This record gives sequence, C-alpha cells and structure tokens, in this order.
Amino acid sequence: MRGIPLGMVGGGQGAFIGGVHRIAARLDGQFRLVAGAFSATPEKSRASGAELGLDPARVYDDYRQMAIREARRKDGIRAVAIVTPNHMHAGPAIEFLKRGIHVICDKPLSATMAEAKRLAKVAEQSKALFVLTHNYTGYPMIRQAHAMVARGDLGRLRLVQVEYLQDWLTEPAEAAGSKQAEWRVDPARAGLGGALGDIGTHAWNLAGFVTGTEPEAIAADLSSFVPGRVLDDNAHILMRYAGGARGTLLVSQVAPGNENGLRLRLYGDKGGLEWAQEDPNRLWFTRLGAPKQLLSRNGAGADPAAARVSRIPAGHPEGYLEAFATLYTEAARAIRAHEAGEAPGPEVTYPTLAEGLSGMRFVAACVQSARRNAAWVTL
Amino acid sequence: MRGIPLGMVGGGQGAFIGGVHRIAARLDGQFRLVAGAFSATPEKSRASGAELGLDPARVYDDYRQMAIREARRKDGIRAVAIVTPNHMHAGPAIEFLKRGIHVICDKPLSATMAEAKRLAKVAEQSKALFVLTHNYTGYPMIRQAHAMVARGDLGRLRLVQVEYLQDWLTEPAEAAGSKQAEWRVDPARAGLGGALGDIGTHAWNLAGFVTGTEPEAIAADLSSFVPGRVLDDNAHILMRYAGGARGTLLVSQVAPGNENGLRLRLYGDKGGLEWAQEDPNRLWFTRLGAPKQLLSRNGAGADPAAARVSRIPAGHPEGYLEAFATLYTEAARAIRAHEAGEAPGPEVTYPTLAEGLSGMRFVAACVQSARRNAAWVTL
Amino acid sequence: MRGIPLGMVGGGQGAFIGGVHRIAARLDGQFRLVAGAFSATPEKSRASGAELGLDPARVYDDYRQMAIREARRKDGIRAVAIVTPNHMHAGPAIEFLKRGIHVICDKPLSATMAEAKRLAKVAEQSKALFVLTHNYTGYPMIRQAHAMVARGDLGRLRLVQVEYLQDWLTEPAEAAGSKQAEWRVDPARAGLGGALGDIGTHAWNLAGFVTGTEPEAIAADLSSFVPGRVLDDNAHILMRYAGGARGTLLVSQVAPGNENGLRLRLYGDKGGLEWAQEDPNRLWFTRLGAPKQLLSRNGAGADPAAARVSRIPAGHPEGYLEAFATLYTEAARAIRAHEAGEAPGPEVTYPTLAEGLSGMRFVAACVQSARRNAAWVTL
Amino acid sequence: MRGIPLGMVGGGQGAFIGGVHRIAARLDGQFRLVAGAFSATPEKSRASGAELGLDPARVYDDYRQMAIREARRKDGIRAVAIVTPNHMHAGPAIEFLKRGIHVICDKPLSATMAEAKRLAKVAEQSKALFVLTHNYTGYPMIRQAHAMVARGDLGRLRLVQVEYLQDWLTEPAEAAGSKQAEWRVDPARAGLGGALGDIGTHAWNLAGFVTGTEPEAIAADLSSFVPGRVLDDNAHILMRYAGGARGTLLVSQVAPGNENGLRLRLYGDKGGLEWAQEDPNRLWFTRLGAPKQLLSRNGAGADPAAARVSRIPAGHPEGYLEAFATLYTEAARAIRAHEAGEAPGPEVTYPTLAEGLSGMRFVAACVQSARRNAAWVTL
Repeated sequence: MRGIPLGMVGGGQGAFIGGVHRIAARLDGQFRLVAGAFSATPEKSRASGAELGLDPARVYDDYRQMAIREARRKDGIRAVAIVTPNHMHAGPAIEFLKRGIHVICDKPLSATMAEAKRLAKVAEQSKALFVLTHNYTGYPMIRQAHAMVARGDLGRLRLVQVEYLQDWLTEPAEAAGSKQAEWRVDPARAGLGGALGDIGTHAWNLAGFVTGTEPEAIAADLSSFVPGRVLDDNAHILMRYAGGARGTLLVSQVAPGNENGLRLRLYGDKGGLEWAQEDPNRLWFTRLGAPKQLLSRNGAGADPAAARVSRIPAGHPEGYLEAFATLYTEAARAIRAHEAGEAPGPEVTYPTLAEGLSGMRFVAACVQSARRNAAWVTL
Repeated sequence: MRGIPLGMVGGGQGAFIGGVHRIAARLDGQFRLVAGAFSATPEKSRASGAELGLDPARVYDDYRQMAIREARRKDGIRAVAIVTPNHMHAGPAIEFLKRGIHVICDKPLSATMAEAKRLAKVAEQSKALFVLTHNYTGYPMIRQAHAMVARGDLGRLRLVQVEYLQDWLTEPAEAAGSKQAEWRVDPARAGLGGALGDIGTHAWNLAGFVTGTEPEAIAADLSSFVPGRVLDDNAHILMRYAGGARGTLLVSQVAPGNENGLRLRLYGDKGGLEWAQEDPNRLWFTRLGAPKQLLSRNGAGADPAAARVSRIPAGHPEGYLEAFATLYTEAARAIRAHEAGEAPGPEVTYPTLAEGLSGMRFVAACVQSARRNAAWVTL
Repeated sequence: MRGIPLGMVGGGQGAFIGGVHRIAARLDGQFRLVAGAFSATPEKSRASGAELGLDPARVYDDYRQMAIREARRKDGIRAVAIVTPNHMHAGPAIEFLKRGIHVICDKPLSATMAEAKRLAKVAEQSKALFVLTHNYTGYPMIRQAHAMVARGDLGRLRLVQVEYLQDWLTEPAEAAGSKQAEWRVDPARAGLGGALGDIGTHAWNLAGFVTGTEPEAIAADLSSFVPGRVLDDNAHILMRYAGGARGTLLVSQVAPGNENGLRLRLYGDKGGLEWAQEDPNRLWFTRLGAPKQLLSRNGAGADPAAARVSRIPAGHPEGYLEAFATLYTEAARAIRAHEAGEAPGPEVTYPTLAEGLSGMRFVAACVQSARRNAAWVTL
Repeated sequence: MRGIPLGMVGGGQGAFIGGVHRIAARLDGQFRLVAGAFSATPEKSRASGAELGLDPARVYDDYRQMAIREARRKDGIRAVAIVTPNHMHAGPAIEFLKRGIHVICDKPLSATMAEAKRLAKVAEQSKALFVLTHNYTGYPMIRQAHAMVARGDLGRLRLVQVEYLQDWLTEPAEAAGSKQAEWRVDPARAGLGGALGDIGTHAWNLAGFVTGTEPEAIAADLSSFVPGRVLDDNAHILMRYAGGARGTLLVSQVAPGNENGLRLRLYGDKGGLEWAQEDPNRLWFTRLGAPKQLLSRNGAGADPAAARVSRIPAGHPEGYLEAFATLYTEAARAIRAHEAGEAPGPEVTYPTLAEGLSGMRFVAACVQSARRNAAWVTL
C-alpha cells in the first residue's frame, strides 16, 4: 500500500496548521506529500518545498498553476490539502475540485457565505470528494460519545453545553507581530467571525457531531474586548433545539489560563457525558443513579467506535495529531473506495460540505443575533 | 466565652438544612441552641425539641409565640435561625426583628418580592441584625478570590462564568414523596423561581461577592424539563456588566452526574481564577503568561482573607459545614460588636438584606426575561 | 440529649491538635468541654481556660489534680481528651482511667513501648473506655473502603500501597522556633520515631483498618535528611502479609508540595481501590475489566457504612474536622452504651488500645529494621 | 529531505510494538520503511511486508539474510528497527552493527547479561550507532524535568519515587492465548525479569534520565502473584543513591485500574516535581514555600528542552506516539551528523548501550536481592 499522492496549498514556513496537516497526512502512511503551492510569495513557496524535500518541479508559485499541471501529470496528486487563511479556501478548492482532485480543506469553509455557496455548487457537481478538517471529531472518545448518544445511553437529550476557551488573544497579539493573530482578526481574511470562525465553528461542529442534531435557533452575545479589534474575541450563545433540548456555547480567546479548552457536556434524562480536549483519552459517563464512570480509550468497556480509530492500547495517550490523522485516514478510505467505484463502509466518517455550510450559517446567525442585541435567530 | 443563645424556626425532623444550621451554629462554639419552633405541627416541633435535648418550656408550637416569650425572658434568645421553606422566611423574620432579636435566615430572602420588601422595611428599622446564609461565601478560597479580584490580580474584569448544576430533580422526585423536592417545585412555597431560587440565587450571590459587582442586565432562557413541573428546573442566563464585562450563569437540577456543582470562573485582562465547590480548598490562579498556580487553603502564599476564616492547616480539608459555620461566626462577631455598641472590624463579612434583595431581583428579572423570550432585562 | 462533660489535658494556646479536638468534640453536640489542664505552665492553663469560657474552678494547674477533683465532683467530667506531646500521653491517661474516667487520647499511644505497656495494663483493668484518635478512620469513604474489602469487592488482596507525605519539615523548622516541630524531632518527647510516630502510625493504622489485617514482617529504610535531626524524617518500608499480600508504606515530612498527602491504594485479584485524604469524599473503585468508578460520599451507590457517618448530602464536602468528630461521636455512643450497661451496636467503630499497641510495635520494628540495614523484622 | 531508509526485524501481524515503531519512524518524516524480516515464519513475514506495501524483494525470511543483502545494496537500509521479544534483540543487533547499519532496538537490551555483553562489545567496535527505545524519555515534560533537576530547581535531591503499574496480567492472560503475555512470562524469551524487564526497566531508565544519576544499591521484594507464573509480576524496590538520596521503585502488572501508570516524583531540599505518563503534557512543580505550579508543554514558562521536542502549541495534547517519534528523530539527527562526520548537537539525546546495560544490571540486581530475601545489592 503506497500513500495517495498529495499536494498542499498554503502551509509555508512560519505557518502552524500546515505542519499539522503534513504530520496528520503522514502519520498513518496513507498519503505522500509530493507537490505544493506553499505561499503566495514564490520564493517562500520554493524555500518551503525545498525544506520538505520535494521535487522542485512540483513546487508551484500559485495554486491554479498547480491544479492545472498536476491534473495533467500521470503521477499527479490525487488529493490536495488547503491550509490557507479562511478567505483563501474557496478559490483553491474550486480549482482542484473542477479538475477531479479531492480536497481536504481546513475549517471554516470560507470567509463569506457567498464564497461558501459558490464552493458548495462546484463541490456538488465534482466527482471529487470534499473533506473539511473539523479534526476534533477524530478523537476516539468523541466517536464513542457519538455512539453512546445515538444508542440512547443518555436517554432523551436535554442539555448541550459546549465551550471553547483560549487565552492567546488576551492581549493585542495582532499588533505584536503574530502572523497567526493578524489574519484571524482581519475581517477581510477571517470573514464575519473572529473567535467564532476560528474556534466557535469547531465547538459548533463537535456538539453537532456528538448529538447528531443542531439547534433550530440561537441567541448570541458577542464581544470584542481588546481595543481596536473589529471581530469578536468572545461569544456567549444560547441554543434551542427542535426536540426541546437547550444549550449554551461559549467561545473565548481572551480567557487567561485556557490553552485550548474545548469541552463538551451533554445531559439527558437517563445520564450525562463530559469530555475535555486537553484530556482527550477519557470520557466521563454518569448514568442517573449510578456511580460516575471514567471511560478510557481502548480501556475496559471500550466502544468499537473508539477502538476503530485508536492505534495503541489504553493508558498510552493519543493526542491531537492522532485525531487529526484519523480524519486523513478516513479521507483515504473514502478516496480509495470512491476510486474503486465502491461506497466506503458506513463507519467511515468525516466532516464535509454539509458541516462546512452549517458552520457558516452558525457564524452568520451569531453575527445577525448580535446586531439585534442577542435576539433569537432561526437557523 | 459562652455561646450566644439561639432559637430556631423550622428544621424539624426530616428537614435537611435545619441540621446544617445547627452544626454550623455549634461548630465554632459561638452559639447555643436553647429554643425552637421546629414545625408548624406542634407534635413534631416538640419531638424535635426533645430529640435535641431542649428544655420543653422553650420548645414552641409556633414562631410568633416563641418570639413573644423569648423576647420577655431574661435569658431569652438573642438570635434566631430561620430555616423554613422560602414562603415562611419573611413572616418569622419580621416577628423577631420587631422584638430586637437578631435573625439568621436561610436564602432566598422570601418567596415573593412583596414579602421581601415588607421584610426589608422592618429590618431597616430594627436595631437587630439580619444575616442571610449565602453560605458559599464562607469558603476560605472564596474569600481569597474576592481579595484577589479587589486588589487587581486579574486586571480589568472581562468574563464571569458561574454555574450551579445538580441532578437530584432529573426525575420527578416531587411525585415520589421527597419532601425536599415537593416544596421547591411548588410556586406557593418556593416563589417565582424553582432551580433559580433554590440554587441560582447562590450562584448569583457568589459571583457578586467575588467580583464585587453585579450585572446591569440579564437575558434568561428558562426550562421546565420534567413534565408537570411549573417552575424552572434549568436556566441559561447571559449577563452584561456596567464596566463592560460579560458573563453567563447556568443553573440546573436535571444534569445527571452533578451532585452540587457550583463553579466560578473569572477572567480579566491580566489573569484568571477558577474554583469549584466540590473541591473547595483549592483555587486555580493564572496570571497571563505565567504557569498556572494551584493555591491551597492555608498553603504557601495563602491570603490573610482566607487564613482568617480557616481553622486547620493546609492539606486538612475543610468543607461545607465549616464554610457555613464561618457565616455563623461572622454573625456572632457582628452581634457581639453590635451589642457592645461598637462596629465590627471591617473584615467581618456576611450577606444581609442587600444581598437578599439582589437575589430576589435576579429571580424576578429572569422570569420576566423568560416571558419575553429571553430578552434583556435591566436590573 | 445533653453533651457528655469533657475535660482536656494539653491543647493550650498555640497548640494545633487541641483546637481540633475541641471542634471535633463539639461538632455533633455529643460532648461539652467543662474542665481542663491545658498546660504544664499554670498561667498558660488558666489563660487558655479563660479564653474558652470555662469556670475557673475547673481549670487546673496539672492533670493529676484535675483527675482527682473531677472524679470527686457529682457533675465531674466523664471523659477526658489527652492532646499533649507523645511522652505525655500515658501518664495522664493512667490517672483518669484509674478513676473511671473515659480517655480519648491523641496518637501515638505513647513515646516508649514501656509506657505503652504500663498504660495498656491500666486500661485493661479500668472500667473506663480508651479511645485513640486515629482520626483518618473516621472518613466516610474509608469506612466504605473497609466494607468493600471485607465483603470481597477486591477479591483476594495482593497489594497494599500506603503513603503519608508532608513537606513542613523540609527545612529545620525546629530551629526556627516552631513549637510543633520542636517536640516532634526530640526523642525525649516524640519517642523512637520522628515522622514514623507522627504520621507513619496514621498510615499504618489506616491500611490496617481498611484491609482488616496487618503485615507479619516489615523492612524499613529510614532517613534523617535535615542535618542535626536525630529522628527519621523519611521512611521507605516494605511489608509482607501472612496471606501472601505485599505492600509498601512511605512516610515523609520532607517532600515539597505535599501538604497532608495520606493516600491508600489496594489491589486484589478482582479489583482495586484508591483514596487520598486531601480529596476525602471520593473513592476510586476499579473492578478488573470494568470502567473505573468514582464513588462519592452519599452519592449514587453509597455504602451504608459511609452513609452512617455522613452528615450532609453528596456534593457537599465533609472534611478533616467531620472525620475527627466522627471518632468523638463513636466514642460518645460507646460511652453511653457502656454507662447503660449495654454493648454498643456492632457498627460503632473506633481505634483503641490494640491499635495503639500495634502502632508502637510498628515504630519499634521499623527502627530495629533500620538499625539492621533494612532487614526484615517480624511483628 | 528524504527519509533515511529503514528496515525492521520483527513486528509482523499481531505484534504491538512493531506498529508503534513504524508510526514513530514515519511521524516526523525522518525515516522510510523499505525492508523487513517481520517474522521467523517466512509466510508471515511476506504477508506483513505485502500489507505494508514493501517491495517483495526486500521482505526477507530471516534477519541475517536481510543484513547481508541490504548491506550490499546501494540503496540499502541505513538503519534497522529491532522489535522482537527480548531474547531476539542481541542476535539481530549484532548482525546489523557488524555491517555498519545503525540499530534502533526495543528495550530491554536483551534477555541475558551474557548476550548483552556480547552485543555491547560489537556495538562498541561498530561504526554504526545503537539506539535503545526507552521511549518515555522522549516526552517533552520529561526533557523539561531533566533540565530542571540539572539546573538545580529542586535543590539537592533527596527522594526519588518512581512506579510503573499496569493491570493486564492480573489474570493469567498467558494461558488465555495472549501472545503479548506469553513471551513476557517465559524466562526463555523474556529473561530474568518479568514485569521487571518489561516495564521496570522503563521506570529505572526514566528515573535515571531525569535525575542524571542512578542508585548505588537496591533491595527488591519480588512476587509472582498469578499461580504458575515463574517470573515476577510485581516488585517493590528500595533504592539508595551515592549522594544520600533514597528512593522507591514499584512495578506491577497485577494492579487493577492501572492501564499504563508510569509515574515519577522527585523531591529535593528546594522543591518537588511530579509527572504521570497518562497525562504527559503536564508537570507539577513545587518550590518549597511557593504555590504549586502546573507546567504545560509549550505553555507559559515552557523550557527550551521541552519546546525543542514539541510539535504543536500548548493545549494540543501530544502523546505516546509523539514521544516515541522523538527518539526516532533524535536518532535521525545523530545518524545524519554521524554520516556527515560531525558530532550531533549536544542537545541530541537518546538512550543507548549504557542505558541498556544499566537496565540489565538493574534486573539482575533485583533478582539477586530477591533471592537473598530483599537484601541490599550494590550495583
């Protein structure tokens, strides 16, 4: 089994998420990075390609060129990872999808709803697959939580409490030269949402994945605490579900002491679940009236849904990169099945267009609600 | 030093909070229980009094009788603990206050705002003191948190996240014969709020105590998940502060796995604090850009505000009863100073009328907001 | 029910454990402190008595006087708490026991085995009860652990790992004026063991209580890390049990970061238990092949043995003082039954002479082993 | 940069550690697996090679063949991973070292001391490198702990407490068809030590790495709890260091509830450190007299030694595979420097022969001590 040849758009020197995608693609041996347009600055792209040991002929100055040329090569890439800032997702994705090259795209789907729709149209018509890396759904215990909710372990769902708190934008990092911060606080590059788009969409997606449902209405109180910041750096959101459940979604990038605090709590009329991304190999499960259980990845009573995406035994922690790699590996399974003209097994799971559009609607609804003083907005 | 003679209204056999007040009153040796009207049913009151070893002559069939007679005795009670359901707070409190007997009253202040105002009027005119047992403010690390916020350890406050989650009303306990549940879900006895009044007021008070401020507006999404329940058993509340801070306050009695989950998180532009009632001897403190610190009660770097209300060294856990006893001991200090015609030291701290009225306004505002589809209500 | 009249030997101003005993005696309302010989210095004794509001006629200059006079009073004390340094346990205990006054004595039993045996002889012949305050056995979850082991929840016991780590003697506190430190490092007052006697006996007792058995042999590696210290401040001990189980017992007062780290882990062929004194309301239980359970005091699946000694519901933390008070309350039950000529219920449980002598043998065996280069010593 | 061509001995279908080595080799892109002798059974070796997508010409029936042929190829492997049971380490290692092929070998060094010495001799004379995968030293916070001890953050070291507890051999898994269990309890394949060799050597190595020193004497109490088991499944070990420090090392594979419980605690006269493998991104640090700090990988105050071997930001957990990969990447750095005739930077760190021999001596000393009733054995 050789890896699927992969290209990359973005992710040049100094970027964070590009390196993550490269490790994720490599970890399970399912992809080989062979081409890239790593930066809009040709010199940077070439330097990055050289550093990665790529054939210079396959390091491109722009993504369109790469799409055209790779599509023509016999040994051309079959998939491309798009790891640019939000406003640069749709453009490249469309170029590759049009040419039948599978796209693995960082979240959120795009910076604007208009772009998102344009991308969606192309993706729907393309024979290539589109995978959106809401990577937290790759964690084994999140897969297990999803399975537990689906089979009714919590009873009827009543409460959804999800939060994603960070602290790295507590001070104006964007003014201090942080490239990571700069584009994330710039509406032109980030889109409508600041923290909302960057991490809120992850929280939204995670809750949606585990519960198998989404709110029908939200009310959002957005703040920009750091002076001069246009986009939100904090959001407090109420949620109402069609089935009667209620929820809250908290997002912050100004909460000192929170490094990457994505946490999910679900309560039904029969039991509850709690999970925290920084301790991802464990899942608290409480049946009403029974002692709390601390379930562990691949531990006693492990769920097949978790075991399926685990690599090593209980007590040997898997982390963020493994969860990310799981999405790549799910993508590889889907691609191989697709190319063989088969359906992937029903267990193959990854976020795609639908999740991307949902995230875009979520951000838009929050912004709309905030403009109307946190009034309810129907999704 | 002999204990201050104390009476009790309510708290007969089968009650929960009456026993807590008795231990709290006794723990530091500041009070002696010598009289009581423990139940509206005379036989029950007498049986309770006998069980407690009281002089039968000082066990009364009703609280008014007790107020009258004890006020006349030379060795009469100087303070009374009121531990009845919410709708029975104001009546007794007024009787004792009118006669110059200090009142230590369980929260919330009363079942209705009208009663609360009537009580407030009497209390303001009485020479006796009124103490409201928002007992969680008695925890040493909560005193320390208050001191830290006050002296600016967090910088300018931005975020207030408080929650109080329980699970004991997940099923209709009120229909299964739980006395504790019965009155709490009955509007006639509990008042406007269900979980809101029972535990939401604690969360509100705790956040107010530690931050030294209160929101100017709230928006509340209330639910009654258990069929047939009239009052809320869950509340998701947004908060806005005059100074620009934002917050959330979550309340639930239907969250399986949560026994008594009162938790507070505060974030300013310089640092954050986190505390959980079930692990009360510890307080997380994070200065922006510095390692997280786990402060312990009376441990290295303990704050005088915490040490002052601690009884034993670090590592020897104090709990709920000690925190409750601290309010009694603060009350005793205030009473002794008051009777000596002196002011208690500025460090003597306990919740009183102002906090009680604030809690009443909080519940009323939530209910009003909920009726208007979670619109903002100014406090 | 009026409290049993209680006297106290030791515990004057500046002492730690005296105050703890007073709160413990008071907390459940089972005792009333009415007399005391609080210090070998008469002025100090009187000042302490005055501070405690005692009748000056019942504040004594020495304990023998107190024993004689109180025994003669009609309303004399029926029990005495002995809270002096180790070398001052046996003398007072004998005086009171001889006169039929029940003794509640701090641990260890005494400073020397000779004294211990003398005390034992008197106690065996006395009609009064002798209670030794190995207070950690008063924790509800320790009672539950004991019940679980006894009924075979762990299967056949294989491993006993107990440790008691502190840090307060990391530096020579005895040279810096700490009274608490001074006598504990002085062989004349502390006895053969330093940390061993002070906290090692607690660890030994705790393991013995929960497992219901004691090692038949130990091997001890003792250290005195702080220069000039004669007695041990650290001990690493191997244990072998008759039934084939093995264990370790670690003791330290020089382990920075450990405030009062008494921890117990037990493993049998069917399951394991873990408990830590600083988080006393929880008990980890793992059945082999099943998810880990976090049992909580009075929580779902609470054991009657824990509920019996709990005062408040799950989620409302009880702490060190409550556990200590439980021993006092057990003592009160035993005293009342004894005085009524009845046997206390089989559930009434407290450490007594046997546990005290066992602790003395433990310390002696450790010291003997250490002198022989950590060779095995049979108990 | 292309990966270094790598071969593998062992690790065929059904093996655990082989898969781990393959991911570890791949994760940072430093190695490419191109050849293998995956099993002593040729069919199995070929099936494994096919599954891994290797050129069939480079899948060998035995390791000697592989060493000979690969050494001759121009594009032959430059390194080999040896992932067989203990008794099959030395043989292959010698074949490859003799031919100048770098060896990355699983621990322990070998099954017998005789073999170990033979291997050591060859390794010392070979121009190729020898790397022993004591993978836990690859964790960033372990690197940080090492740096902190080295620069004196703990002051003078007094106490070393290390333990490695598992539960997977609580029952006779070897009789139930577990291949992993079978060879580990078989003296012919495992060597002198059971749990000692399998995981005890890891604990020994970890303590040695972080402290920078090793005990001069140990006393070991070994047990074989499961009937019929010849080798130890539990060990309680006392340690004495030349500098005066004392320690304990606990090893168990029969402790229910422990999945992979490798934990280290160090205490000096100025501070303490605590780390647990199942929560590897955090490190507790307590300076005497200061609040406890919870250091996080790449978090505020991160040490360069940890940052150097981290891939992603704080709050994004790295796990077991990343730590393992770090050893591979260190090996790659050493190999590249070596082949360039240069010394690797002083920061390049990996366990090698010395650590392997130390582990062998440790196991032998424990067994010798146990035979003499846990007497001290000098190392």
